[in-house]
Formats: sequence, structure tokens, C-alpha cells
Amino acid sequence: MSSESTSKKSIGIVKTQSVRISQPLKLACGIVLTEHELIYETYGELNAQRNNGILLCHALSGDHHAAGFYEGDNRPGWWEHYVGPGKAIDSDRFFIVSVNNIGSCFGSTGPTSINPQTSEPWGASFPSLRARDWVESQRLLMEHLNIECWAAIIGGSLGGMQAMRWSLEHPTKVRNAVVIASSMKLTAQNIAFNEIARRAIKSDPDFCDGNYLQQVKAPVRGLALARMIGHVTYLSDELMGQKFGRELRIGDLVDRNADPVEFQVESYLNYQGDKFSDSFDANSYILITKMLDYFDLSREYGNDPVKAFGHSECNFLVISFSSDWRFAPERSREITDALLAADRPVSYIEIESDKGHDAFLLPNARYEDALGGYLSRVADQLQGGA
Amino acid sequence: MSSESTSKKSIGIVKTQSVRISQPLKLACGIVLTEHELIYETYGELNAQRNNGILLCHALSGDHHAAGFYEGDNRPGWWEHYVGPGKAIDSDRFFIVSVNNIGSCFGSTGPTSINPQTSEPWGASFPSLRARDWVESQRLLMEHLNIECWAAIIGGSLGGMQAMRWSLEHPTKVRNAVVIASSMKLTAQNIAFNEIARRAIKSDPDFCDGNYLQQVKAPVRGLALARMIGHVTYLSDELMGQKFGRELRIGDLVDRNADPVEFQVESYLNYQGDKFSDSFDANSYILITKMLDYFDLSREYGNDPVKAFGHSECNFLVISFSSDWRFAPERSREITDALLAADRPVSYIEIESDKGHDAFLLPNARYEDALGGYLSRVADQLQGGA
Repeated sequence: MSSESTSKKSIGIVKTQSVRISQPLKLACGIVLTEHELIYETYGELNAQRNNGILLCHALSGDHHAAGFYEGDNRPGWWEHYVGPGKAIDSDRFFIVSVNNIGSCFGSTGPTSINPQTSEPWGASFPSLRARDWVESQRLLMEHLNIECWAAIIGGSLGGMQAMRWSLEHPTKVRNAVVIASSMKLTAQNIAFNEIARRAIKSDPDFCDGNYLQQVKAPVRGLALARMIGHVTYLSDELMGQKFGRELRIGDLVDRNADPVEFQVESYLNYQGDKFSDSFDANSYILITKMLDYFDLSREYGNDPVKAFGHSECNFLVISFSSDWRFAPERSREITDALLAADRPVSYIEIESDKGHDAFLLPNARYEDALGGYLSRVADQLQGGA
Repeated sequence: MSSESTSKKSIGIVKTQSVRISQPLKLACGIVLTEHELIYETYGELNAQRNNGILLCHALSGDHHAAGFYEGDNRPGWWEHYVGPGKAIDSDRFFIVSVNNIGSCFGSTGPTSINPQTSEPWGASFPSLRARDWVESQRLLMEHLNIECWAAIIGGSLGGMQAMRWSLEHPTKVRNAVVIASSMKLTAQNIAFNEIARRAIKSDPDFCDGNYLQQVKAPVRGLALARMIGHVTYLSDELMGQKFGRELRIGDLVDRNADPVEFQVESYLNYQGDKFSDSFDANSYILITKMLDYFDLSREYGNDPVKAFGHSECNFLVISFSSDWRFAPERSREITDALLAADRPVSYIEIESDKGHDAFLLPNARYEDALGGYLSRVADQLQGGA
């Protein structure tokens, strides 16, 4: 039914690129970044018409390394399963751009960068961000790449919020928005978990009111806790049951002795927390979770999502996962219903999965087919002449 | 249909009682408490046959003050709505005993008590506990009260676990077990949330490896975080949405200025965390969450709940709440199914509620009717001669 490539392979070795954007970026909070750096990767080739560009938007803890491998490093990008030659997001047919967004901590301008006005790290003084600021920064990268219109913008979770925001702010610059495991706004429960994570970070004495870099410290205990809280909400109860059950890693509960007992799930979570706190920046975590909390698609459209999506001109693919309780399928159905009510072209699919919110990152045949089939038709249309 | 009292009123002013149990209590971990103190309250009168006793079992953060008021204090007990004259747990018909369990921090022997062997607070050295230890200590209190058999043992959450454990360990000492919003064992997700809470406490530098009392410190930040995590899991997403939505307490998101913004739900949770950390003991929190994690009704019965319940001789009432995702209705259905398979008399009711796990503490007409109707029949049977 579609002209998919028949063999899937890895994009192989990739290199990180960077650009210093010298146009001023006026943030939603009113502060202007006079210049900013963006770190990004690209996969595939831009065609002669320059219309086969796909923008990948990462989520809270994501980065620009979506696919392939770095020289001498066997860890693939975070979306390796879906991005590459012959894959769902096919680098044989698309020019795929994956950017680390500002405020994050993987090389693009953010709290760990030097504030040119003080010659010190921005730290906690980095300006408050909104999803629209990421969109605006991505638009400047788009100009740098000399692309007029994205064939598609794709993102999961916070990435989906960026795709939706693009469709409203720059309706002529995006043909397709793929919104995966996302939401038009967070629920009170979502905000609650984010706030607990932030409080965990701020409660760590090594947070030093956000100035830990200057004091050569790092609030690793707080950040590990924050990640553990987040991590539990990304997994389904069912998956955790299958993966860990009540298995013990240390000790014995039958003996009823006083020796310490540790469940596998405890050990796993502690490991995940510690690993994350070694690689992520605490101020970035606070900044980006607040961006998530603040996101409300239709706030500036009279709180009417139908009115909001009335401004969009692209086609939409909305995908949710059955066991996702962070951004439940109900949230995706709300997006779809608003798009339908706004008379926008939308396809919606709910994927059966026991993997919770994390499902959007993980292999799943039906998800792969839905995404690959949709994008294959997009590529066919481009070739048909646009 | 039942001979319920027609007027419900508060039990009024109550006084705390205490008893020093001088029989040695051999704990499941092997350690022996040579003596221990129990703080408790009673409501109503023990009848001449001494067979109308009801034992209330509290949960993680509960205490002995289930009903009524202390002189000069207008805060009612935690189950005021359900315990008192003419209420569902009717002090006109029953002699109700509510005990603060060992390991907790409201007066009964626990980590804040003085270890007679060291003359210092037990702190983190207080022995590891199991639900069966609470049951055993409650049995010693029962002896002290000269009661041979409870008319009913009632508990929600961890309280339901005690009621079930009683039914297996002392089948002739309990006529009815009322198991509310409980589970035969925690899921991996339950354990995960408990472990994050414990890590939050242990990460607080003022925890001092559990010896904060000796150092005149208190890990209030860690304990507040622990409570916040727990609290979110006790509420339903739906209830949080109704109660807080995305309402702001401070700031304005439309203005897009850089001023701080705080959602109502953040403020509420922070308040709950702080309030709790002023009144609860961190070592008790660690101890009792571990008791929850370790609980596994059928571990000693070949991991077969049917075989386990085969040892019980009482009637069961099992109650769950539709929006409870901490101990979901599915957990109560598992209890009920095991009881049915063991050919035990059981009534099961799932109450429609949007209040999450906390529903077991809150007013709900159908819940009140179910509990009151069941216990009224129990009282009728007692009067009919037993």
C-alpha cells in the first residue's frame, strides 16, 4: 500500500553540528536572548525543492541525538528504532533535523551556558521558557537551513506540544504535525508530580538556590529523586509488574530475619535516578518541567481548542498508547476531537501497549506501521509534486 | 431492614488510655521487645458477654484517635464520620478499640521511644516490623481488655491487611473482618512510590542516618517530600482536576511575564507536605512503608491465597473504591475471589467514588450504608445470642 523501503538499517555514524544564531530571540517572558547556540543532527539529504525536511522535537529529558551512533560509542540515539534508512521516519526519503532545544543541557544555550553579560553560568537565572520559545528557536534554525516549509514536525510528549504549537504559530511552515502521547495541557496530577520533582531538587542543600555550578556542587540526590518520580509515571503499573513483580534483589522475606531486603524495582529505580543525575542539569529540569506545566494550547485562543486549531493548516496524525497514564489516550482524543470540530484533517490511532508513557520511545509494530505508513504517504505526495 | 440507631452524633470528648504490656513480644524479625507501651482509645461499652468488641486498625499515617474530640481541641478523630453513637460503626452497640500501633509515633512504643537497653531513642535501630507484629501486639491488648473474640476487625489500606492477617493467625478470635481499600500484597508500582518516599527522607542531610533525634535535628524536607509523593497517589486524577484544575495561586500566565507562577495544586501539596513533616516521625515512615512493601498475605501459605484464606473462620466484608489507583478495585476483587474459592462467606462492594484511595476516610452515603448495614446485622446477631 505504500512505497516503503524494504530494508531497515541504522543511519550509522553521525556527527553533531552546531550553529550560533545571531538574530535576537525574544522570549515569551519578555527577555531577549541576543544570540544563542543550537546543537543539532541531521539524517538524510535535503532534496532539490528543499521540501522534504522533518523536524524532530524532543521531550523533557531528550536531546539532539535521535539516531545513529557517535564514533567509538555503541549507544544509539533515543529514537534509533524509528529513524534511519528504510525506517518509519525514513532518512532515505526525508531530511531529518533533530535539535537540542534551548534551556536543555546538551550543548545548546541553557542554564549551564555562560551568560555573556556576567561571564558566569546562567544557572537559575536562565529565563523562564515556554514551548513557543522552542518553536521560535527552531524556526531560526529552519531559516539557517534555508527550509521554507517542513514536510512534517514530529514529537512525543512535550515534543507533541511543540508540533501543535508550530501548527498554530506558523501554519504555512508545516505540512504535517505528528503528535504522539501528548496533551493540550497538563492535568493537576501531572503538575503535582512535576512540582514534587522540583521540590526534591530544591530541597537538596547542594542546589545552592540554583547556583551550584559556581559553587562546584551538584544537587545529584535531588535530581535523582526527581527522575525516580518521573520514571514511575512513565511506566505502567502492568509493565512494572511484569518487569519486576515483587522479586527481591537482596535478602529473604520468608526467613523473617532482620537483614536488609531490597526489591528489584527499588534497585532499578535507584539506578535510573543516579544515572540521570550524572547527565542532566537540575536547573534545566526545573525550567523544562515548568514549561510543561505552563503549556496550554488554547490559552491565547479564548481557552477554545477548536478556535486554536482553526488557525492550523496542516494535516495531523495523533497517536496515543493504551497504558499511558501520564498523558492518557483521553488527552489525545481531546486533541483529535478539537481538530475534527475545527474541520482539520486528522488521523487518530490508539496503540495497544503495556509500556505506559515510555511507549512512544519503544519498539511496537503497530505504532511503527502507523507512523511509517503515514510518513510514506507524505513522501509519496512530495514526489508527486508539491 | 436493620435496627440502626436513628440519630447519629459525635462520641464527644474522648480520653487517651495507655497500657504497658509486660509480656515479651517476639517480632517476626526474631527480636524480642521485652515490654512495650500501647496508646489507645475506646468508644462505647463492652457488654456483659464481652463479645461486642470491634478493633479498628489504622493505616500508614494513622493513630489511635479515630473518633471524638480531645478537651479543648476541635479537631475530630480521623474516622469521625463513621465512628460514634448511631453511626456506621456504632458505639451504642459496640465497644470500639482504636490503638496506635508499635513503630508508629503517637505514643506507642516506636522509633521515638527510649530503648531501655541504651537509654537513647530507638531511632533507625527500631526493629523491622511486619503486619503480623501489629496483630500480635493487638492480641496482647485484647488479653489486657479481657476480650476473647472480636465481633469485628475493621481497617482500610494497611488496616485491611491487619484484618486479613488476624483472620489467618487467630481464626477463632475474630467473627468478622472488614477489609477496605486494601490488597493482599503491593504491586511493583506501589513499592516504587514507597521507595522514592524513603529515599527522599534518607537523602535529607538532617536524617543523619536515622539518628536525627540524638542530634536534635529533623529531616523535615525529606519527610515533606515523602508525604507529597504519597498524597498524590491517594487522590484520583479526576478529584485533583475538580479540586485544583490549573488554577493559579500566584502569578499570571497570560501576561507571559517573568514573575513566578504557582498553581493551586503546588501550594496545596507543599502545605500538606510541610504539615505532615511537623507531626510524623521519619523513621516511623520508613518502618511502616517497609511493612507495607513486605506484606504478602499468602507467602507462608505456598503463595496461594485460597490456601491462606482456608485457615480463616470469620465472615468477610470487602470494600473498594472505583477511582482508587493505589489499591485498585482489582486488588479487592482478588481478595474476594480467593475467599470465594476458599468457600469463605464474603460480601464485596465496589463504591463509586472520585476520591481515590482516600475515599475510605471520607463521607460517602453508599459506603456508609454498606458498612453500617453489615455491622448492624453483626450487632443483631450478637443480641440474638452467640
